[in-house]
Formats: sequence, C-alpha cells, structure tokens
Amino acid sequence: MTVSAFDHPILGALIGDAEAAKCFSLEADWTAMLAFESALAEAEAALGLVPAEAARRIVETCRDFAPDRRRLAEGVARDGVVAPALVALLREAVGEPHAAFVHRTATSQDVIDTSLTIRLKSVCALMESRLVALVETLSRLAARDGAVPLMARTRMQRALPITAADKLRAWREPLERALARLAELKPRLLVVQFGGPVGARGDLEGKGDAVTEELARRLGLSAAPCWHVERDRLGEFAAWLSLVAGSLGKLGQDVALMAQNEIGEVRLAGGGGSSAMAHKSNPVSAEILVALARFSAGQLGTLHQALVHENERSGAAWTLEWLTLPPMVAATASALRHAATICEGLRFVEPGAAGPEAGR
Amino acid sequence: MTVSAFDHPILGALIGDAEAAKCFSLEADWTAMLAFESALAEAEAALGLVPAEAARRIVETCRDFAPDRRRLAEGVARDGVVAPALVALLREAVGEPHAAFVHRTATSQDVIDTSLTIRLKSVCALMESRLVALVETLSRLAARDGAVPLMARTRMQRALPITAADKLRAWREPLERALARLAELKPRLLVVQFGGPVGARGDLEGKGDAVTEELARRLGLSAAPCWHVERDRLGEFAAWLSLVAGSLGKLGQDVALMAQNEIGEVRLAGGGGSSAMAHKSNPVSAEILVALARFSAGQLGTLHQALVHENERSGAAWTLEWLTLPPMVAATASALRHAATICEGLRFVEPGAAGPEAGR
Amino acid sequence: MTVSAFDHPILGALIGDAEAAKCFSLEADWTAMLAFESALAEAEAALGLVPAEAARRIVETCRDFAPDRRRLAEGVARDGVVAPALVALLREAVGEPHAAFVHRTATSQDVIDTSLTIRLKSVCALMESRLVALVETLSRLAARDGAVPLMARTRMQRALPITAADKLRAWREPLERALARLAELKPRLLVVQFGGPVGARGDLEGKGDAVTEELARRLGLSAAPCWHVERDRLGEFAAWLSLVAGSLGKLGQDVALMAQNEIGEVRLAGGGGSSAMAHKSNPVSAEILVALARFSAGQLGTLHQALVHENERSGAAWTLEWLTLPPMVAATASALRHAATICEGLRFVEPGAAGPEAGR
Amino acid sequence: MTVSAFDHPILGALIGDAEAAKCFSLEADWTAMLAFESALAEAEAALGLVPAEAARRIVETCRDFAPDRRRLAEGVARDGVVAPALVALLREAVGEPHAAFVHRTATSQDVIDTSLTIRLKSVCALMESRLVALVETLSRLAARDGAVPLMARTRMQRALPITAADKLRAWREPLERALARLAELKPRLLVVQFGGPVGARGDLEGKGDAVTEELARRLGLSAAPCWHVERDRLGEFAAWLSLVAGSLGKLGQDVALMAQNEIGEVRLAGGGGSSAMAHKSNPVSAEILVALARFSAGQLGTLHQALVHENERSGAAWTLEWLTLPPMVAATASALRHAATICEGLRFVEPGAAGPEAGR
Repeated sequence: MTVSAFDHPILGALIGDAEAAKCFSLEADWTAMLAFESALAEAEAALGLVPAEAARRIVETCRDFAPDRRRLAEGVARDGVVAPALVALLREAVGEPHAAFVHRTATSQDVIDTSLTIRLKSVCALMESRLVALVETLSRLAARDGAVPLMARTRMQRALPITAADKLRAWREPLERALARLAELKPRLLVVQFGGPVGARGDLEGKGDAVTEELARRLGLSAAPCWHVERDRLGEFAAWLSLVAGSLGKLGQDVALMAQNEIGEVRLAGGGGSSAMAHKSNPVSAEILVALARFSAGQLGTLHQALVHENERSGAAWTLEWLTLPPMVAATASALRHAATICEGLRFVEPGAAGPEAGR
Repeated sequence: MTVSAFDHPILGALIGDAEAAKCFSLEADWTAMLAFESALAEAEAALGLVPAEAARRIVETCRDFAPDRRRLAEGVARDGVVAPALVALLREAVGEPHAAFVHRTATSQDVIDTSLTIRLKSVCALMESRLVALVETLSRLAARDGAVPLMARTRMQRALPITAADKLRAWREPLERALARLAELKPRLLVVQFGGPVGARGDLEGKGDAVTEELARRLGLSAAPCWHVERDRLGEFAAWLSLVAGSLGKLGQDVALMAQNEIGEVRLAGGGGSSAMAHKSNPVSAEILVALARFSAGQLGTLHQALVHENERSGAAWTLEWLTLPPMVAATASALRHAATICEGLRFVEPGAAGPEAGR
Repeated sequence: MTVSAFDHPILGALIGDAEAAKCFSLEADWTAMLAFESALAEAEAALGLVPAEAARRIVETCRDFAPDRRRLAEGVARDGVVAPALVALLREAVGEPHAAFVHRTATSQDVIDTSLTIRLKSVCALMESRLVALVETLSRLAARDGAVPLMARTRMQRALPITAADKLRAWREPLERALARLAELKPRLLVVQFGGPVGARGDLEGKGDAVTEELARRLGLSAAPCWHVERDRLGEFAAWLSLVAGSLGKLGQDVALMAQNEIGEVRLAGGGGSSAMAHKSNPVSAEILVALARFSAGQLGTLHQALVHENERSGAAWTLEWLTLPPMVAATASALRHAATICEGLRFVEPGAAGPEAGR
Repeated sequence: MTVSAFDHPILGALIGDAEAAKCFSLEADWTAMLAFESALAEAEAALGLVPAEAARRIVETCRDFAPDRRRLAEGVARDGVVAPALVALLREAVGEPHAAFVHRTATSQDVIDTSLTIRLKSVCALMESRLVALVETLSRLAARDGAVPLMARTRMQRALPITAADKLRAWREPLERALARLAELKPRLLVVQFGGPVGARGDLEGKGDAVTEELARRLGLSAAPCWHVERDRLGEFAAWLSLVAGSLGKLGQDVALMAQNEIGEVRLAGGGGSSAMAHKSNPVSAEILVALARFSAGQLGTLHQALVHENERSGAAWTLEWLTLPPMVAATASALRHAATICEGLRFVEPGAAGPEAGR
C-alpha cells in the first residue's frame, strides 16, 4: 500500500525524505514504545511501586522484543489504538509473575503520545541541523554572489534594481527566526505524556508526579502535568513546520520565477528532463518547494481541527493528528532537503551575462 | 517508510483501505501507464501514424514489462515525474527499430494523468458498490428498527421524540445523492488525457483528435480535448469524496453520541478495548468516521489550491494533487468500510430497554 | 465593524462584489424570512391548518414589517439564532387572535435555511449570467486573437509554440463545465427547508408533506423531505463555488505571468499604480483572482467540516456555515467580475510586436 | 454589505467582537496610516532628510485629516492598494512646497503593513488581558468547584472518576502557554515595516536603518530590516490565534457535552431559547466556541498559503492575508469573550444533585 506520495517506492525519492520517514517507521515506533515501557518499569521500581526484579525482567524483555505484527494489526483494527495489543503481547513475553507490572497504571495514550514525543525529539534535531546548514549555505551564497544586480519585481512587474544579497536575506531571515522559535517551543513539545487512564495519575500512592519525573529523566524528555487532552503542544509544532515549509515555498517560487528563460537571473544545477522535449531543464526542486508549502499549510489547517479534543480522550481528534502530523514532518524535512539542493547549485547571473540563450 | 497512516503496516488496518490502496500501488500505476503506451501505439497504428509492426512490438513488450525500480526512482528524483525514465526504459526494452514509436507525440502528463484516470475508474466502481450496499444496509436497518423511539437532540439538548427511521433517513439520503452526483460527474472525470508536449496534439498530421478517440475507446475512457491544465475534473471528484466522507462523519458522530453510556440509544457490535480499563467498549469505527471526515475536508481545501495550475503545466500544482488525492480516495473508501461495519452491527435500543447498565 | 475585506468600505470596492453582497444584507435576509412566514401561513391555510383570516393578517403584516434591530441583536446573542426573536416580534405585530398562527409548527432552522436558499437562488442566477457572459467574452477573444502565437510554458520553462486559442480554450472549458454542473446541482440546492422542531413535520395532522409542497411552490423552490441535518446540499454548492474561483485563479495566474515585462504576451487595460514607482502598471485584477481562488479553496475545506452536523441540529456546524458560505459566494462573484474586467481589456501580443519596452 | 457574519448587524452580536472589530475599522486604519506618515516625516526630519518645516506641516495635516472615501475606494479598485490614493490626497492637503516630502522614500507596503502592525499591537493587548482574566476565572472556578466529582470520559465512554479540578486544569494550561507564547512572539510581530519601493531602503543617503529606528521608536514598535516579503511574522501570529481558538473550542465542546440533559455535569447561566421548543436551554456560547475553533483552523490553513509570497511583493499573497487575518483576530477575540461568559456562569454539579430533571 502506497497511498501517500511520501511512502511511494518511486515518488518517495522525489517528494519524501528518508531520514524523516525513519522516525515514523514501525520499528521506530516500537522502539520508542518499548523504551517507554522499560523506563516506566524502572521509574516505578525506583519509587517502590514495582518490584526491582519485575522491572529488570521487563527491561530485559523489551530489549529485543519483536511483537507479532498480525496480532498488532488485529488489535489496532479492533481497539483503535495499538497499545492494548502491544501491552498484551509484552505481558505474555514477560510472563508470570511479573506480567502485571508491565504498563502499570499507564494507559494507551501515555505510551503512544510519549513514543511520538521521543521521535519528535529526533525530528527537531534533524530539522535544526538542516536549518543551520541551509542558513550557512545562504550566507556563503551571499558572500559569493551578493553583489550581483537583480531586478526587484513587485506585483509581478519590474520595479527597481536590487542585489542578490537582498533576495538572499529575505530567504535567510525567516529561517533564522525558525531556529529561534524552535528553541522556544522545544521545552513545550518534548514533554513526557503520563497520566494513566484518565490523566489523573491515580493508583500510584500519591507518587504520580515523582514517577513522571523519573520517567522523563530516563527518556530525555521534560516532565509536566499530564497533557493528554491539551494538544496545543502539537498544534504549535505543526504551525512551526508549516512556517518553515512556507518560507521555503517562497524561496522555491522565487527561484522558479527567476529561472524563467526570458528572465534568467539564476542558473540551477541539475534540472529535470521532459519525456517529450529534450531541450528543457525544469526547476523541479523549486516547484516541489511550492507544492510542499501549500501542502503543509493545508495540513496545518486540518491538524488544528484536532485541538477540539473532547473530554478526557478523543479517538476522533487523536486519529486526525495521526493522519496529518507525520506527513507534515516529512514535507518540511523534504523541503529542507530540496532547498539545500537548490541553494548548493544556484548561481545568480548578471543581466546580459546569461549567454546566447538569454531572453529567448 | 510509512509516513502516512494509510500506508502504515499496523495503523493501516484501522485507518486505511486495502482495496483503495491497490489502485495506488506501484504495480497498478505501471499497469495503467503501460496500458496507455500500448493503446497509444495501437491507436496511432490504426491511423497510420505508427507502423503496425512497431505497435505489435510495443504492445507485446508492455505485456510483461517490469521496469527497473532504481532507475525509475532516480528518474523521478531528477525529472520530477516518472514518465521520462519509464519511457526510456520501455524504449530500451522495445529495441530498435521500433523504439522511437514508443510514447510517440505523447508527453509525461498524458501517460501519468491517464494512468490516474484509469485507476479512478476502478475507484469509482469501488465507491459506487460500497455506497449501494450501505444504502441497502440502512434501508434494512430502517425496516427492522425504524419504529424504535429516539429522542431528537438539537443544539446538544433533548428536543422532542422522533424514531430511528428519521435518523436513518438523514444518514441515507446524502448517500443517495452521492450516487446521483457520481453518475453525473463520471463522464467529466473518466476522460483520457492526450495532448502531447503542450496540449495541442501537434505532430500528428492533423489526426490528434482521431488518435484521442481511438485511445479512449481502447482504454474504456471518454475522449475530449486535452485537459492537462483544466484540473476542475479532479477538483470536482475530490469534492465528491469529501461530501461522502463528511456525510459519513455525521453518521459517525451521531453514533458516538447515541452510544454514550447515559444515553444508550444504540448498541454496537464489537467496540474497542482499552489498555487500562477493561470495562470499556469504545465506538472506534464511529470516531474514525469523524476523523476521516475532518481529514477529507482539509485535504479538499488543499487540493483545490491546485486548481491554480499555471501555464501549460505546473509542476507545483500537479505535485500537490499527487500529495492529496490518493489519501482522499483512501479516506473515503475507509469511511465507507467503517460505516458498513457500524451499520451491520448497529441496534437501536428503546429507552429503558438498555438493561441494568443504562443511565450509568 | 468591517472585519471582512468583503465588507470594508474601501477594500470592498476591490475585493468585494456589490451584487453578491446584496444577497447577504440584513434586508435581503428579512425579506426572505418574511416571505417564508407569509408563504407558510398561506400554505397552512390552504390545507386548513391555519384560519384564512389569520393567514391574511400574517401576510399583510409581513408585507412591510420592519423588525426592531436592537431586539433582534439581543435575541441572536442570547439564542444563537435570530428566529426566536424575529418570530416573537412578528407575533407582536400580528397581534391577537392570530399571533399563535405565525410560524406554526415551524422551527428556527426552517425559516433561516429557507431564507438562505431563497437568496442562493438569486446567487445562482447571478453566477450563471456572469459565467455565460464570460464564456462569450472568451469566445470573442478567441475569434479576434486566437491565431496570435504564444510560447507554451511547462514547469515554468519555454516549451513549444501554441496559439492564444489554446490558452483561451483552457480558460473557457472549465467555465462551460461549471455551467453544466450548476444546472445539475440546482435541483438539489434550491429546496425548501421545512421540518418543524426536529425535522419530522409533526403536529400537522399528517399534512406535513402537503404543506411543504405548497410552501415550496409559493417560494419558487423545490420540495423534498426535511434536510436540516443533511448539509451535503450546501457542501456541494460550496465546492462548485471553489471550482469556479479556482478555474478563474488559473486564468489570473496565467495573465500575471504573461504580463511580466520580459514576456509581454498580453497587454492589459487599466493596471494599478504604485505609491512609489510611477512607471509601473500592475496586473491587479489578475492577482486578485489568484488570491480569491486560494481563499475559496481554504473556505471550502473549512465549510466541509460542517458536514459533521451532529444529531438533529448542530449549533456549532450551522454557525460554521454562516461564517464561511457568504464569503465564498462573495469571493466567486468578485472573481467573475475581475475575470470579466481582465478579459474585456486583454490583448494577446505577438512576440516582437510589444514595442520598444518589450524585454526590458 | 455584510458578507461576513463578523460584520453582520445582527449576527455580529453573537459571533463578532466589537473591540476586535474596532482595530479593523476604516478609522483605525486611517489613524494608523496617518501616524505612520507623521512619524516618517518626523523621523526623516530628525535625520536631515526632510525639512523641519515640511515635517511640521505634514504632522499637522495628518492630525485631523479625513480623506475622501470615494476617491480612496476608486483608488483601491484601480491600484489594488489604498496607499497611492491616500498619499495623493494627503499630498494635496499638505500642499506646496511640502507635498513632495509626504511618504518620502516609502512605499505602499510600508504604510499598510505598519498600519496593520500598529493595530495588532492593540489586538495583542486585548488578547492578553482577556486571557489573563480567563485564566483567573478558571482558577476561581477551580477554587470553588474543583472538588466536585466528575466522570472522565474517554472515546465518548465513561471511564473513571476525576474531579472538576482536573477538567479545569486541562482548560487553563493551554491558555497559560498561550500567554507565554505571546510574550515570545510579540518582539517578532510588532516590528515596523519600512523598506521603500523594493525593500532596500534606497534614496536615503545611507540613513535607511537610522530612519527605521526613529520611525519605530515614534510608533512604539521595534525596528528590524525590512520584512515585506517575510510573512512568517504574521503566519506565526495567525497560528497563535488558532491555537487559542482551538483550545477554547475544546472547552466549548466539553461544556456542550457535559451539559447534555442525561449527563448534567454542568449548569450554565443563560442558554438560548428555541423558536419552537420553550422547554429548551441551549449551550449557545459553547457551540459558538466550537464553530470559532474550526473556523480559525481553516483560516490558518488558508493564511499560511500566503507565506509563498513571490518576488519583492505579491499582490496575490498580500490580498490573501487581508482576507484571512482580520476574521481570525475577530474569531479569537470572540472566542475569548464567549469563554468568559461561559466560565463566569458555569457551575459543576455533583451527580445526583442535578434535581428532578437529571437523567431525563
């Protein structure tokens, strides 16, 4: 099944992003869910809520546990979430007398949301490193080509001369602000989810917050009160993704416009071929940036619908996040990749310097 | 890579739809693209534009051609579309002296859009048969439970008594209209795309329209002037998908509300378990319907951005369709599947007949 | 208050549309609501459910009834709908002994949805006449300029020569399909809403359907079972609006691209000035078309969220329609107006014929 | 014209917000635009770029300048922006020999974006004060009703007992984070726009940045390089608005669900009447919150399309912002108002304490 272009064996090479996709593989999810169950057992053992031996057995079992995919798929189709089946399988594997200490006082949402958060931490690191590299590439471009004269165009008409440095600044500054925003939002995003069935951290002899602290520490996340129905944390991150993709969409649209034959203010390395016209060199990556920007904006508008998360757990709103957030991550990661490709191969060209084909 | 929940090996069992996904598999796409290349060669041969022998060789080669995936992926990453690489591979396979007659006067968009259309024909058939079956299920439900008294609720408050028949009618009628709309739009949707590099059907000795007629006939599609930049055909179908998903979302929301413990106006077969609360029976399919409706609405708003398809081919707008239309098809197919599951297992319950747990 | 650009005393001249806006004026709404109350009284009188004298008194009172705005505003702020206050005021004005026959067995949604439908009938007529005129303008343009050679551009790069006729065909055909679709959907859209409190047409001595027929006939609408929770009728029309706006957005984007100084394939009449650059002539209407297309797509994605209309009346979903549908109508009407302005003043220009400024 | 419900003379009382709307009145816009022209003249005079006398004359003229609305409307319809006509009128009013110093080296976008920013400063203050008040109201509610037992409901089914304090915490925390985010984003949002025709601050004898500093200081805004094409500043704020509206949508949805007759976990003050059913009390404000949340999410997805702001000024993208941002501000302001109304009149009710009507 390859319904999504991000997952498509062929199109994925163009539109997708292998590194981002890794964060949403089944294996990454399992690994993170098992890390949660391990850390939970340890945290509860540290606080005397789970016998040390049970915790050891759980940690050990999680280490190389490979759940039965068929039973997971059946479970998710029945329960709407993967956790009940996963926990049942893990309990089987842990065996008696420790099975009951697996997932103790936790609920499906704890393990699923925390797994997502663990993987979003990797996503943030990926985005950050790509953004930093892209900002550097743009700075190098400005150092090399900044003085090249360009024509500013307002409302699609020639206006007055500017330089490539002006254009590059307009591409770079939003990315610098994106880095600043990411630093601000990470403490709100990378927070362990732990609340138990209804978010109240019950049945923990009053040690719910302490368990959370321990659990967070072990997972490299922050602790906070249970946020299971407070989806602004994810909504904020999604908005950040769309802001980045949108800023790169502007870069792509500018490049596609400057690369028009009659304008020829930039030359691109690469450029896609046509099945019918051998003379063409298409600004494929620039167009993909525009597509990903528009896609991301639309997904954001959809994901924010999930902020209306009714009661103490909304299957509807939660599922809507699952449908929209991973593609948003993939889109922005892919946009950063395409922007890097463009900027690494881009040359600003002086008017009249474009050679005999200019203005054709 | 499983960025999309529709493609996820586990979640896909819940959210996805195997039959719809088949239409978007690599194999289905290849098969349809090769059907196009075959039919084109035959159509052009019928009109004396391609030697009969070349056409035979092309048809034969297409029959069990398995293109090299790696080269296709490289091609799509370079060209932004799969067609140039596919055509090159097919020409290699056909060999001299016939290679040049492969894809003759066609362009990437011809083969890609027509492949999509061929598969959307299957999608329409799938949707239609599920809709018809669901309408029948709802009619049977009305025949059996229609007289059960319910409380109408307006603005989330008890209003006045109605019957299950009233509720079922409100679920059924939009689906009947959906069937009527589908019949109306199919002649606009299931149209072969054939225009050559810039849509003008050039280089065909004035036989462009005749080739199109022949091509369409062979592919079981309608003929029309080239529509490569007229994306309202797809935009209309996407709106249809969202209307169906939205109407089923209403059904799902109603079921989830009626299934609340204190209200208990329906009983559901199945119902999902909880990893923490054994006593629960969650209306999973009903929630999924709500999620898919909201997802579909959001995708529609995104896909309609692609109506702004600039010039004679927009890489940006076209890519945006690829990102949004297949998930929309999967969502609506999945919604029809979940609605069938719900309705087949649904029982309307008289107030007071819900047993000792009612009103808890 | 001028929160919306469509209502802005200055911006409205650019973005809004006076004729479309008239359909959403308070006066138009009142007039339509009073037409409903009048026709309902007559219809019920015709079927012996309301005394003839009461009906006469109601019709007479409605004729020049001007409700107290302040009380309506208070009412809507309290009740969430205008109808209870309007009915109360109308009953006061009708006076005893007939007051009780005002709005007999009807509910708020009946009068409000029917008022909308009455006005959408005018909207459809407006859209249709503008579409027909625009199709004619495009045909005239093709007759005059069709032979002018243009360069086709695919993926933002020069491809092969076409003619203005090719471009014009691509603009015209989606509008012709829009007319066909409008003819198909009108019977589904222009349907009276009548159902009483919970949609069941109760308290009418079994004459509910007959009343509906009479009511519809008097209002120039079709009759059908009550559709109060079946919002696909409106969702379909909204999709139609977005398809039209999107198709015109493509026209606008093409014009803005062809009007670029270096390309100069079209000349526009008018063109906006700049506060800083006297030499500029901006393709304002073309840009507005793009903006309205993107706006309409986004609103459609929002309005389709309202298809999830829970139970027998959803204040939330209904309000969401009120927030999105009128701006969608205004946007598409405005787009049709701008497209007419562009096309009436457009000249396709042969390469090299653009005069000394060409290619600057 | 009252296309938008926010501007509607009757519906506006329900859906709109008078204080927010004030920021988007024609008068507020003029006032802010004239403040810009005044401050610019002063700033340029302070740096010796404009004669002191000219600056005095400009400041004086701006003080009670009332531009001719008809000419502004004609101007905006022609130019796509109001600024050229406004500047022409202001120059007329200033008269010779100072007229030429009006708007010196500035461009339309400088005055229009800065006017928006000046008004967004008021919007931020309004939002902040309402958020602070709402957080306090929720804290007071928790102090009074926090111990009331409620039933947690997950996936629309009864789960386990919680207390009102749990529910209130889930409503309050996202608002506290919204306040933290607002403090972070304000320095990025409240920045003067000044760049001249193409953003490069030319023709200012190298004093462009100094003028910007002076200008910003006089307007109470921050200075920064010209951001005319970097729309992430607005996109970030729009996302903030949608996060707030979405969080309040959750509150509204929870209230509407808890207020269901059979559940009765809250009692609301007020509650809207029905035109047909006197016994009803509708949770109108709660439903409006849901509608505004869904509306805001949709607008956000639309506004982020405007991040793709091509070249040095996009009439299309800019217009799209004008169409979406003011309604978003109004929606969030209205949501804060409705949430305050709900929370001030809300009482959590112990099960069994709801009186004889409970569980009906």
